[in-house]
Amino acid sequence: MEHALPAGETGKRIARLQEQLKAGGYAGMLVSQNTDLYYLTGTMQAGYLFVPDEGEPTLYVRRSVARAERESRVRTKPLGSFKAFGAELAADFPPLTGSGERRTVLTPLDALPAQLYLRLAELLRGAGAELADGSAMMRRLRMVKSLHEIGRIQAAARAAAEALDEALPLLREGVTELEWMAAYEHAVRKRGHIGTMRMRAYNLEVLTGMVGAGEAAAEPSAFDGPAGGRGLGPAAAQSVSRRPIGRNEPILIDIGCCIDGYIIDQTRTAVIGALPDDLLAAYETSVRIIRRAEELLVPGTPAERLYEEAIRMADEAGLADHFMGFGADRVRFLGHGIGLEVDEWPVLARGFDMPLEPGMVIAVEPKFTFPGRGVVGIENSYAVQSEGPPLALTLTPERLIRLP
Amino acid sequence: MEHALPAGETGKRIARLQEQLKAGGYAGMLVSQNTDLYYLTGTMQAGYLFVPDEGEPTLYVRRSVARAERESRVRTKPLGSFKAFGAELAADFPPLTGSGERRTVLTPLDALPAQLYLRLAELLRGAGAELADGSAMMRRLRMVKSLHEIGRIQAAARAAAEALDEALPLLREGVTELEWMAAYEHAVRKRGHIGTMRMRAYNLEVLTGMVGAGEAAAEPSAFDGPAGGRGLGPAAAQSVSRRPIGRNEPILIDIGCCIDGYIIDQTRTAVIGALPDDLLAAYETSVRIIRRAEELLVPGTPAERLYEEAIRMADEAGLADHFMGFGADRVRFLGHGIGLEVDEWPVLARGFDMPLEPGMVIAVEPKFTFPGRGVVGIENSYAVQSEGPPLALTLTPERLIRLP
Repeated sequence: MEHALPAGETGKRIARLQEQLKAGGYAGMLVSQNTDLYYLTGTMQAGYLFVPDEGEPTLYVRRSVARAERESRVRTKPLGSFKAFGAELAADFPPLTGSGERRTVLTPLDALPAQLYLRLAELLRGAGAELADGSAMMRRLRMVKSLHEIGRIQAAARAAAEALDEALPLLREGVTELEWMAAYEHAVRKRGHIGTMRMRAYNLEVLTGMVGAGEAAAEPSAFDGPAGGRGLGPAAAQSVSRRPIGRNEPILIDIGCCIDGYIIDQTRTAVIGALPDDLLAAYETSVRIIRRAEELLVPGTPAERLYEEAIRMADEAGLADHFMGFGADRVRFLGHGIGLEVDEWPVLARGFDMPLEPGMVIAVEPKFTFPGRGVVGIENSYAVQSEGPPLALTLTPERLIRLP
Repeated sequence: MEHALPAGETGKRIARLQEQLKAGGYAGMLVSQNTDLYYLTGTMQAGYLFVPDEGEPTLYVRRSVARAERESRVRTKPLGSFKAFGAELAADFPPLTGSGERRTVLTPLDALPAQLYLRLAELLRGAGAELADGSAMMRRLRMVKSLHEIGRIQAAARAAAEALDEALPLLREGVTELEWMAAYEHAVRKRGHIGTMRMRAYNLEVLTGMVGAGEAAAEPSAFDGPAGGRGLGPAAAQSVSRRPIGRNEPILIDIGCCIDGYIIDQTRTAVIGALPDDLLAAYETSVRIIRRAEELLVPGTPAERLYEEAIRMADEAGLADHFMGFGADRVRFLGHGIGLEVDEWPVLARGFDMPLEPGMVIAVEPKFTFPGRGVVGIENSYAVQSEGPPLALTLTPERLIRLP
């Protein structure tokens, strides 16, 4: 329990949430997804948290009640029968039913299964309220990290950097992507990686990232990232394959880990021997893009601006078709927020016109894909600061890793 | 791609699904969850499969189109804009709109995010159809495994057994749960474990299972299983902890893996030294329960019967309060189906009165929890056969593992 959530954290988060609830005229927020629950309570036990627009929230615990009582920073109550939960909520939070007019309760609908949504919506109607989507409010709330959270991401960055150092000597010609990834994973697991990097999006999985050599890295995939990787087969169609790593081809090492619930995400390009000139030039373009991104990672820059700038630079370098995937399989972003999940806000993509704020933590990952040949690029994670350049969180030195 | 889905498999599955759709008067099934997609098409790319009540299904692919075209056993089409998808479906499957009366399209709502559900429901209304829950139909369809699937589960069982053999010499006094689990995971990952054992249920995660020594194994958790484990902290509150493994205490080794998409789940109890007499007696009760379960794992037995029988035996042994967790934290089942996911049907629990059928693959896991002391038990996976006793799929020899 050494890195449990400090007691003061949840109070501040709940106060910020309540401000937003009040501003929107909402009666409250109902929370059930595991990272949302942890963020607001300090525990990840199964149940429902209700945060009213003002006053004390309650965590209704299905299981384990004992563990939730020990860990939760907000008041807990054992959840009785699900059927009676609506009446219990209405009794515990009279403003739900008080005025005669129906009030709206938010809940994030982006990760809530539809079956449960339909049951909760009915239950809340019985309690006099309407259920509506609170995803955007929750994601905005979690977007700005506290110093405690940045500290946890730094701990993850340390584990990833140490594990990469430990595994790098095993990266040799003829070793398969899978074998090398297993070595990295062993090194990072011993350091407390929880085994997965949680994702919010439907159907997406990332355990420790991907390692892809040559053309295997460049295979398109369902994964919503610039380089999913070949994978082990159609039922695990991303990340590592059993392809042996060869000489003079790019090796994309896009790895991370999750420590105490918080994630780091980073990429380095390696080569045994030397990269072909055009791939080396593309790698150098990714370095220039990340330098430019660092200049823009300051409060006030619209998030999408970093993507526009990267697109412009890729285009100028004659690499537009290769940027963030190839052709129709390109993804349309330069980076993404990280925290308790890999796919947090802001996304550095068109449409995300929100200005950057101090405390946002963003993985920036310019990459270039060459079908049949490989992927080169770089990824660092940064915290936006109130003044000056962003704080670099990635600890692995930034370099093209050249192995003999 | 060596273990891609054989072409004949999906045809049979779709025919069985279409029989059920016709019997219920449904217009079709819309499928989007990754294991459901793989089960019916042989690919796990992002998109939507529509299976009409008769005729040829179509997989509308968002990404990667190239990979889906290579792997899919059913016809593929690139998915255009999501907005136009309703009109496209109605044009491709005229019976959706033909008769003037609205028809019902099913989709599994147990894993579909509510946000996407609301968009799909609107889109289908536009196409003249209503969306309803197809979870039960999909879970029943996947419940009975083909010989190909059982072969994949056997491959997973082999990897788990070999990896356990490789890691067992490292199980020594003073090694932490995390360190030992990292060694098992390394051994199983090298053998092709995809890194996670997929789960269908909301918020639940299992990567390779749990290893828990003494009182750490007996801590209650949010995980819907008899022994979740202490975990690394509140943000990873199940499975292994950093507790060193000691002498004369039970070590619960509930591990598995996922090979080619298919899962094995198994448990052995180990001890360095000797178990206290009462825990040894409880272990022997779990062995008796699993022997009895083997007698009942034949076609026609109602699934819940195995749970009732286990409860009766635990009660007779004076261990009712310790069975499948302790007190209020007990779970109410004896076992569960396994396949592409860890939490498949049938569940050996009250309310599951469906008769067992040949081809069902079930993990049976009688366990006894002693708060402050530990968990003992056993778990084997079996395939129900048309005649005779079930086929044992677990390859690790069944024994109490006594280490010096």
